[in-house]
Amino acid sequence: MTPQDALKQHAAVAAIRKLPLRGVIGLGTGSTAEFFIERLAALIQQEGREFVGVPTSDRSRTFAQSRGIPVLDEHGPWEIDVTVDGADEVSDNLDLIKGGGACHLREKIINDASKTNIIIVDESKLSCHLGMRSAVPVEVVRFGHAAVASKLRHFGEVRLRLHAGQPVVTDSGHLIYDLRGGMIADPRVLDIALSQIPGVVETGLFVGRASLVIVASPDGARELSPSQRA
Amino acid sequence: MTPQDALKQHAAVAAIRKLPLRGVIGLGTGSTAEFFIERLAALIQQEGREFVGVPTSDRSRTFAQSRGIPVLDEHGPWEIDVTVDGADEVSDNLDLIKGGGACHLREKIINDASKTNIIIVDESKLSCHLGMRSAVPVEVVRFGHAAVASKLRHFGEVRLRLHAGQPVVTDSGHLIYDLRGGMIADPRVLDIALSQIPGVVETGLFVGRASLVIVASPDGARELSPSQRA
Repeated sequence: MTPQDALKQHAAVAAIRKLPLRGVIGLGTGSTAEFFIERLAALIQQEGREFVGVPTSDRSRTFAQSRGIPVLDEHGPWEIDVTVDGADEVSDNLDLIKGGGACHLREKIINDASKTNIIIVDESKLSCHLGMRSAVPVEVVRFGHAAVASKLRHFGEVRLRLHAGQPVVTDSGHLIYDLRGGMIADPRVLDIALSQIPGVVETGLFVGRASLVIVASPDGARELSPSQRA
Repeated sequence: MTPQDALKQHAAVAAIRKLPLRGVIGLGTGSTAEFFIERLAALIQQEGREFVGVPTSDRSRTFAQSRGIPVLDEHGPWEIDVTVDGADEVSDNLDLIKGGGACHLREKIINDASKTNIIIVDESKLSCHLGMRSAVPVEVVRFGHAAVASKLRHFGEVRLRLHAGQPVVTDSGHLIYDLRGGMIADPRVLDIALSQIPGVVETGLFVGRASLVIVASPDGARELSPSQRA
């Protein structure tokens, strides 16, 4: 296990300790979330705990099912007790940028349907202000996407996300533009402005959506909550 | 021709008079817009005027092409001079509800890409305040749509739009929920609030998006523009 993976494992273990005895758990996407899913599966199989998952991506669905975690359907509505997910960047205010894996639409729908949202990251994801480390992923419909991109350019440099020379297509059939406009003074204002552009489905800005952030470092895992930052 | 169709024809003819000598024209969807498309095709074929269309739906694309109007591709960006489209409801402030035909996503993308937007309606579509006549169509992604619907219910009664017992699926592969919450005090505030719900792709509220509204009545066509209403 690499030192980076060891940190992700720390964070996942810390998140496991926050779970209720049983319940419905939102399952994030990405390598850190997969460490958590592994541990959740172990709780079910080794300790007989009763958990049901709501996966935030086709990838997490497949991964959870392969580990024997029962999952709910895609339509909802769900009564999600806790969602555990990663993030690409976490600000001092505990606002997030997500979507490096192109799954932020489903992640945000599930975040919105969840009573508690725990974000697990390693300390490399922390930054004072959003936009210093990551571009903001913006999911857009295919129709007129180049026209939508020209509107996004009012906010910074945009680039259609490609993989092996082809546009990345999300689980919902949309495209991703990555927007780089430097430090984001007010993520909520930017999120609203971007959401108002016709053709924008969802931004990767998660403002006020983290109940608790668990940060793993070589010294152990520490917790950040919005109340502490107020 | 029914009296209703005669009114639509009046409005279409009035819109034709507003066109530039040549240019790129956004083509709305619906029966009123189709009268306009017919007249536009006549200008091209009978008078040799040079127009290119950008259709707001697969239906309008097929219709325009069948009438011999050249059309641009679906990706954009386009330099649209004028878009002519209908509406389901027009308020005193010239804000609109659209989406009765489930095409408001593409209609709004093209509205947003157009220098001038002309709305053609008959007088039955006028109301003091939006929400008195029409439900607000809200296009949502399929994933988690029932969870999204439960969020929409904070704003009124919602109903998944069906056709022949099956959910209506838009040109972009999404579903439509029709939201009825009575008179809308501030359409812009409602539009922003709905757009912020994860999973909402586009609302049918068009706020500040009409450059000119042409209203056909048995007495003729009259024009309403935002400057007159200020």
